[in-house]
Amino acid sequence: MRIVVALGGNALLRRGEPMTAENQRANVRRAAVALGRLVEAGHELVITHGNGPQVGLLAMQTAASSDASFPLDVLDAESAGMIGYVIQQELGNVLRDKRVATLLTQVRVDPSDPAFANPVKPIGAAYDEATARRMAAERGWRIAPDNGRWRRVVPSPRPLAILDVDVLAFLIDHGVVVICAGGGGIPVVELEDGAVTGIEAVIDKDLASALLARQVSADMLLMLTDVDAVYRDYGTPQARALPHLRASDIRPAAFAAGSMRPKLEAAIEFANATGRAAAIGRLEDAVAIVEGRGGTRIDPSRSRRA
Amino acid sequence: MRIVVALGGNALLRRGEPMTAENQRANVRRAAVALGRLVEAGHELVITHGNGPQVGLLAMQTAASSDASFPLDVLDAESAGMIGYVIQQELGNVLRDKRVATLLTQVRVDPSDPAFANPVKPIGAAYDEATARRMAAERGWRIAPDNGRWRRVVPSPRPLAILDVDVLAFLIDHGVVVICAGGGGIPVVELEDGAVTGIEAVIDKDLASALLARQVSADMLLMLTDVDAVYRDYGTPQARALPHLRASDIRPAAFAAGSMRPKLEAAIEFANATGRAAAIGRLEDAVAIVEGRGGTRIDPSRSRRA
Repeated sequence: MRIVVALGGNALLRRGEPMTAENQRANVRRAAVALGRLVEAGHELVITHGNGPQVGLLAMQTAASSDASFPLDVLDAESAGMIGYVIQQELGNVLRDKRVATLLTQVRVDPSDPAFANPVKPIGAAYDEATARRMAAERGWRIAPDNGRWRRVVPSPRPLAILDVDVLAFLIDHGVVVICAGGGGIPVVELEDGAVTGIEAVIDKDLASALLARQVSADMLLMLTDVDAVYRDYGTPQARALPHLRASDIRPAAFAAGSMRPKLEAAIEFANATGRAAAIGRLEDAVAIVEGRGGTRIDPSRSRRA
Repeated sequence: MRIVVALGGNALLRRGEPMTAENQRANVRRAAVALGRLVEAGHELVITHGNGPQVGLLAMQTAASSDASFPLDVLDAESAGMIGYVIQQELGNVLRDKRVATLLTQVRVDPSDPAFANPVKPIGAAYDEATARRMAAERGWRIAPDNGRWRRVVPSPRPLAILDVDVLAFLIDHGVVVICAGGGGIPVVELEDGAVTGIEAVIDKDLASALLARQVSADMLLMLTDVDAVYRDYGTPQARALPHLRASDIRPAAFAAGSMRPKLEAAIEFANATGRAAAIGRLEDAVAIVEGRGGTRIDPSRSRRA
């Protein structure tokens, strides 16, 4: 199968862990072992990844540099280089006889997307409210509460098209494991004359992955995180893992905004657009999930087998 | 012709100009117009670029972030994403019917390269001596004089092999304009078990470009900068442009270490290894240089036409 695998931020950096180069590499190494098993099982992989903590850190760093503060599209590209490199290297070490390549990916968004007026995507570190408010005033950030603390929030417009997807498809067709659309890809808008230019935003990587999976005709969209399945009543004593869902039965709004909700939205979009399944689960269970022995599988609203 | 074009730092950021995102983009746009003319003249391009100012800035920024300081290989990858993205976007706007792709590139170096004990490659900003010495003491930098001021210097080992060069070659063969080996590529060493891992260094982008040009069987290595040719007695009243050189007649040590010397070393290496010409000149003159009407052309030591 051709599988687009989206690595969640929580699969690349354990919750609460400081974002050091060492921690990142240790987690990527763990991910590479899990991804390597998928390739050894005979699947073609396209790998995407989040960049929330990293792009937030880069934004902090660039803002601290008074004469050279870079916009978010450039920081998205930086983080794609930074994370893509470590994934490429560690995965190459696991898959010695495969080629692994990292491609920068521009993703077209609509400049009139309502997300630009209403930024909701949290990036970077979490602060107490007073610190967050002070930083927001100093730096012109928008901030919002996130799991009891406060974080900077940036626009997260819907991805409309992966640019140059045929270059990706071409590499996949020739047996290259491709890492792309890092951090949801680099958001760009099309100008009146047809030129493209970057815009300050961070695209949700699950929605970008669903779009990519459609555009490269993937057989499955697999979203890997640190939770073994989608749960009903997650975090309560009644919590129950859901091994199988049908897109039409899911209300994404009932799930946590920064975590399961975008995954379920992406799963519904992919499943309904293609008639194929999406799946969500834990990194270590990747092979089992693909084989239907773990995680949560999301099927399209209406079965095409009928 | 298949041409590997190395864009000098001075072609991407004018001397003395502050490294803002706007300045970078304006210069990249200028470079994209010049590169576009080469493609329109029918040539296949592989584009490489320097990262000296950018990786130095990223190193400053990451060092200022106490809990998440990243090593130079990761910063090399970041800068490749940052600069590659802007080149890809601006070149794509000039070449609407061509595909442009940016690939991360790992470059193997020797862990026992003497450069690791003797760092000489300047990166980042220039300081007065007192400031440089204070920063060196605070941050563990090695520093060295550079054009009358002082800069941080890092190891710059010789590039030995471009990894996964067949992925690049494959894209070039299929008409894609490829941006790769940004900042000289990401330096890696091979461990005893054959795995590769990053190492802290910045590879000279001209030497990496010469190696790449050999590995992709390029017809020419073209190094573009802000000087129109190689000069004898540069900076003196006797200065004289040299339109044509033979590799055996060049003493690279007679030229400035941070500027013409690595270009001439790269030119000699490429010309002598392949029997083909290298050329050096100004960005705006790219087409004229390739057609032998500008810049400095460096031919191999012995003509193979004899």
